[in-house]
Amino acid sequence: MAIRIGRGVAELTSRPAILGQAAVGGQTEQEGPLGGVFAEVFTEAHLGEKCWEMAESRLQQASMRYALERAGCAPEGIDLHLGGDLLNQCSATNFALRELGIPLAGLYGACASFAQALALGALAVESGAFGRVSACASSHFCAAEKQFRFPLEFGGQAPPTAQRTATAAGAAILGTGGGPRISRVIFGKVTDLGVKDANEMGAAMAPAAWDTLRRFLQHTGARPGDFDMILTGDLGEIGSKLLCELARTEAGLEIDSVHQDCGLLLYDINEQDAGAGGSGVGCSAAVLCGEILPRLQAGELRRVLFLGTGALLSAISPLQGESIPAIAHGVELVNS
Amino acid sequence: MAIRIGRGVAELTSRPAILGQAAVGGQTEQEGPLGGVFAEVFTEAHLGEKCWEMAESRLQQASMRYALERAGCAPEGIDLHLGGDLLNQCSATNFALRELGIPLAGLYGACASFAQALALGALAVESGAFGRVSACASSHFCAAEKQFRFPLEFGGQAPPTAQRTATAAGAAILGTGGGPRISRVIFGKVTDLGVKDANEMGAAMAPAAWDTLRRFLQHTGARPGDFDMILTGDLGEIGSKLLCELARTEAGLEIDSVHQDCGLLLYDINEQDAGAGGSGVGCSAAVLCGEILPRLQAGELRRVLFLGTGALLSAISPLQGESIPAIAHGVELVNS
Repeated sequence: MAIRIGRGVAELTSRPAILGQAAVGGQTEQEGPLGGVFAEVFTEAHLGEKCWEMAESRLQQASMRYALERAGCAPEGIDLHLGGDLLNQCSATNFALRELGIPLAGLYGACASFAQALALGALAVESGAFGRVSACASSHFCAAEKQFRFPLEFGGQAPPTAQRTATAAGAAILGTGGGPRISRVIFGKVTDLGVKDANEMGAAMAPAAWDTLRRFLQHTGARPGDFDMILTGDLGEIGSKLLCELARTEAGLEIDSVHQDCGLLLYDINEQDAGAGGSGVGCSAAVLCGEILPRLQAGELRRVLFLGTGALLSAISPLQGESIPAIAHGVELVNS
Repeated sequence: MAIRIGRGVAELTSRPAILGQAAVGGQTEQEGPLGGVFAEVFTEAHLGEKCWEMAESRLQQASMRYALERAGCAPEGIDLHLGGDLLNQCSATNFALRELGIPLAGLYGACASFAQALALGALAVESGAFGRVSACASSHFCAAEKQFRFPLEFGGQAPPTAQRTATAAGAAILGTGGGPRISRVIFGKVTDLGVKDANEMGAAMAPAAWDTLRRFLQHTGARPGDFDMILTGDLGEIGSKLLCELARTEAGLEIDSVHQDCGLLLYDINEQDAGAGGSGVGCSAAVLCGEILPRLQAGELRRVLFLGTGALLSAISPLQGESIPAIAHGVELVNS
């Protein structure tokens, strides 16, 4: 049974395990610092499809295929899939699951969708309802540019505060057994301090990350130093600085030494054309599944707080004068 | 604890209760057979906002306000909100929750989102993680027409097989206490028999409804006659006929006498301009919260299987040559 330890925060006494996981990526992701962690790299951005949306769907299918293989499961052995993406009507997820045939609970939490999928999936396992649950999320640079900014053919330029949407997916299989465990979950509140520029996502999301981190520490009694890593995804360079500053000024906490951000791990922003860092839900899903979970498995990391961050704007809401609401969901991961 | 009784199907031994619920609607919904069930009717379609998307957000806020009041809760007393809508990036939900301030897990299950929210919410309560959970979903005729078809000013005409997107929202508060209970949940699989016409949603969704109904009956051992009502939302006239035919031809089951459809309950399709019936996730959310849950509460109904049905196309996927994937999620509701 789970135990409520605060509003939207729960401890999972059975500690559902991550039985297998995998990340896949594209060319630019392979050229980054984590180029070696992908189960498969797709250098051809269409992945054999005619449109970007279906190409993104293929990323999800590929990451799921590897994750299932590593967990020693067939798709038929999974009770429930939790997944999401950034496309209108979550079409990458819906079309991927048409092939996979696993019962699907579709999610939309923008770039926090993978953390949300892990948190809800862990609750589903903890409840006893389901034995094995899968989680997957993706993004695709070309699909996101087309939908949120301009088609690539337009040749639009992004300011340096903008983040690069990763062409990547991550998938994980949850259940009872060996592997890194989810010990606590936290669901975020929609936070909006009034940022209106869609090229300033890091700044829009940092207050949401801080709100969730603050509530998690408050309800669990944990201190930043208790974690080997507090991993946000994806604040980028600007949002990461703001989060550390918020922790310092609002609560006198120094988190700089334990804080890492998926958007800054995926790309080398000094060498690659990635603006202020990576973004897109595929970024945090791939970094967690490709780099962090294996390090937990290997015992290099013992306790990680993963806070997925998402900007909840729509493609048209900024044009309608709305500021950018953001959210951060979290799971605490331990290696035993 | 929940008990797994099949793939994606679980029994909830604690039977989480629905502590309060409410439906709100627009002018056309008020003029229909269920006109009297709404906690509030908004005859002005903008609800005081400048765009349809924010107007839809107001529908959610209104339904939540009444549901909370009836459950005797403040927003601060809710641990987790599960909600969704049909708009790109679920913007009606995200902006509604910015005001409500409840931790949010955003969902995308198209018109099955309300059933999905109830199923996941019931699991969250059952797990022990959270004491009170809210669920809400909405749709808005003008926002949906603009996004999926044409702006209203264009004056496009729909064929008689098309369904009318409801301007409505429904909200429910789940927890432990008195009220109708959720005894079982089932998550649907993405089903696609190749329907390509976005004006034939009922036909696209009927096979998904049948797949979920079939699996539910198989795993629970229940017979159609065990239910006072098998309520789909929203197959409309054409999809409803197809579902009954599928049950008859595939399994020799006569469900016509217990089957009802939210899309046919909300509007009088002979008198109102509603094509083959209502649709939009606000339709099933409002019919369940406005009409069915109160009848369970009053003891008029004792056991209802609610199967939310959703068409998982995106606004562009039919233009890219894709057929329409569909899904159906279910909750079994009992009055004690």
